[in-house]
Amino acid sequence: MLDRLDEVKTQVQAALDGAMAGLPEGELTDAMRYACIGGKRIRAFLVMESARLFGLRDRESLPVAAAVEALHAYSLVHDDLPSMDDDDLRRGLPTVHVRWSEATAILAGDALQSLAFGLLTDAQIGAPEIRLALVSGFSEAVGGRGMVWGQALDIAAETAVEPLDLMAIKRLQQAKTGALIQFSATAGAVMAGQDTGPLAEYARNLGLAFQIHDDVLDVTGNEADTGKRTGKDGAANKATFVSLLGLEGARDKARTLVRNAETALEPYGEGAGNLRQLARFVIERDA
Amino acid sequence: MLDRLDEVKTQVQAALDGAMAGLPEGELTDAMRYACIGGKRIRAFLVMESARLFGLRDRESLPVAAAVEALHAYSLVHDDLPSMDDDDLRRGLPTVHVRWSEATAILAGDALQSLAFGLLTDAQIGAPEIRLALVSGFSEAVGGRGMVWGQALDIAAETAVEPLDLMAIKRLQQAKTGALIQFSATAGAVMAGQDTGPLAEYARNLGLAFQIHDDVLDVTGNEADTGKRTGKDGAANKATFVSLLGLEGARDKARTLVRNAETALEPYGEGAGNLRQLARFVIERDA
Repeated sequence: MLDRLDEVKTQVQAALDGAMAGLPEGELTDAMRYACIGGKRIRAFLVMESARLFGLRDRESLPVAAAVEALHAYSLVHDDLPSMDDDDLRRGLPTVHVRWSEATAILAGDALQSLAFGLLTDAQIGAPEIRLALVSGFSEAVGGRGMVWGQALDIAAETAVEPLDLMAIKRLQQAKTGALIQFSATAGAVMAGQDTGPLAEYARNLGLAFQIHDDVLDVTGNEADTGKRTGKDGAANKATFVSLLGLEGARDKARTLVRNAETALEPYGEGAGNLRQLARFVIERDA
Repeated sequence: MLDRLDEVKTQVQAALDGAMAGLPEGELTDAMRYACIGGKRIRAFLVMESARLFGLRDRESLPVAAAVEALHAYSLVHDDLPSMDDDDLRRGLPTVHVRWSEATAILAGDALQSLAFGLLTDAQIGAPEIRLALVSGFSEAVGGRGMVWGQALDIAAETAVEPLDLMAIKRLQQAKTGALIQFSATAGAVMAGQDTGPLAEYARNLGLAFQIHDDVLDVTGNEADTGKRTGKDGAANKATFVSLLGLEGARDKARTLVRNAETALEPYGEGAGNLRQLARFVIERDA
């Protein structure tokens, strides 16, 4: 699985570099490229492995994988802004607004979102109807009832009088990180014109497990490993899965979710080995 | 022409309201809706009138018109942010970050961009290939070598030692406002699978005339009419068409461009009457 993840990383970086090759030289393009460096590429992996389940080739799924990573990169740049989470470190490097300016960070994020949608029109992906279904699903997943809504809920929670309860945190995370993870994991089924149900179920469990482990890492991890500031949630007195379930409770919950995710993959048999391993990786990673 | 513009306004507002009807209630959705109120709707008019030239019906072009206006609304919300142009008044109302917060303004803009791309997948527009061509062209027009690049050039110009010369301002405006205007004016030809050349030529001239007149209004207009702060360019010692050509020189230039725009419409004969009138309107408006 980790070999395949490395392979995905290399391919996606090349695809993103290619997509940005023709942009005018300057701060904006520099910032866009910088924002796309590194990352775990889990979303790209989900796209390319779900596509493989249906016999699709990497060159068909790669533009979709690049699109989800460009979109994810934009979301991190905007989330890190002073008026949002106000983070100065990301993937072990200064955040875009620290390295350049707030204006450049806002614009680089904006242009990465446009780029992401453009990548989904790549003819390599397949029939026009398929590409349109991806554009439409992507718009839903990342917009005002998906990812951006989740971020708005997260910002609102910081100033709320009452900390969120478990249900509210799940809803927030399902929007903020779950929607794009679900888009990524079901992309293969969409491309193949097959039922997205089992992969959506896998993604729901995986996404929540991922987020719970992020909360665990915020408590137990260190900045050298994670490449971002840790201990922020506790300092902000923010309700997290750890504050609500305790450290062991959160770990238990994550393990249960990973088992559910693995069960959801049963219809795909042996071919889903990498997706199964990813689910376990998600709660074992230290970054 | 003004009757048709009113008709377009009504239809586009209804389409935007419809597109946002299912969004979760809250600040984010409120801010998105607020950002979409009012405006001259010139881009929507260009879409719907260019579509009419080729015999397309309003219900086919309306989702495209709504998409360009949603995109335009997002660009204004982000341009007005404190780290960008720092404006507190837009369309006669407090800007989104003044009314709510910077975070909400960034997120509302982000979600409006996602919404705009989603609108272009509407089946009403026509064949899948057409819709994909629109998504692809839109991504180019509004991204890192189009609108966002233009805004980055504009921000950079504010801190540059040397004021921009005429060539540099034209390049900046062609990206910042020209690219979306060109997308809008050629949309009908794209939808009809026809040559976009004449409409692109019309749009290049119209877009520049529009911008020159904006610079003229910044000097001669007042806030009650324009609904935004005026006199900002002079105060910022910013190079504009007026500072480079003088007030009369700028007006002459705009008139020449409008004549060129009208000439470009000749292949379309009588049917292009509204587009011709729009070109004249663009340099006669006081808002």
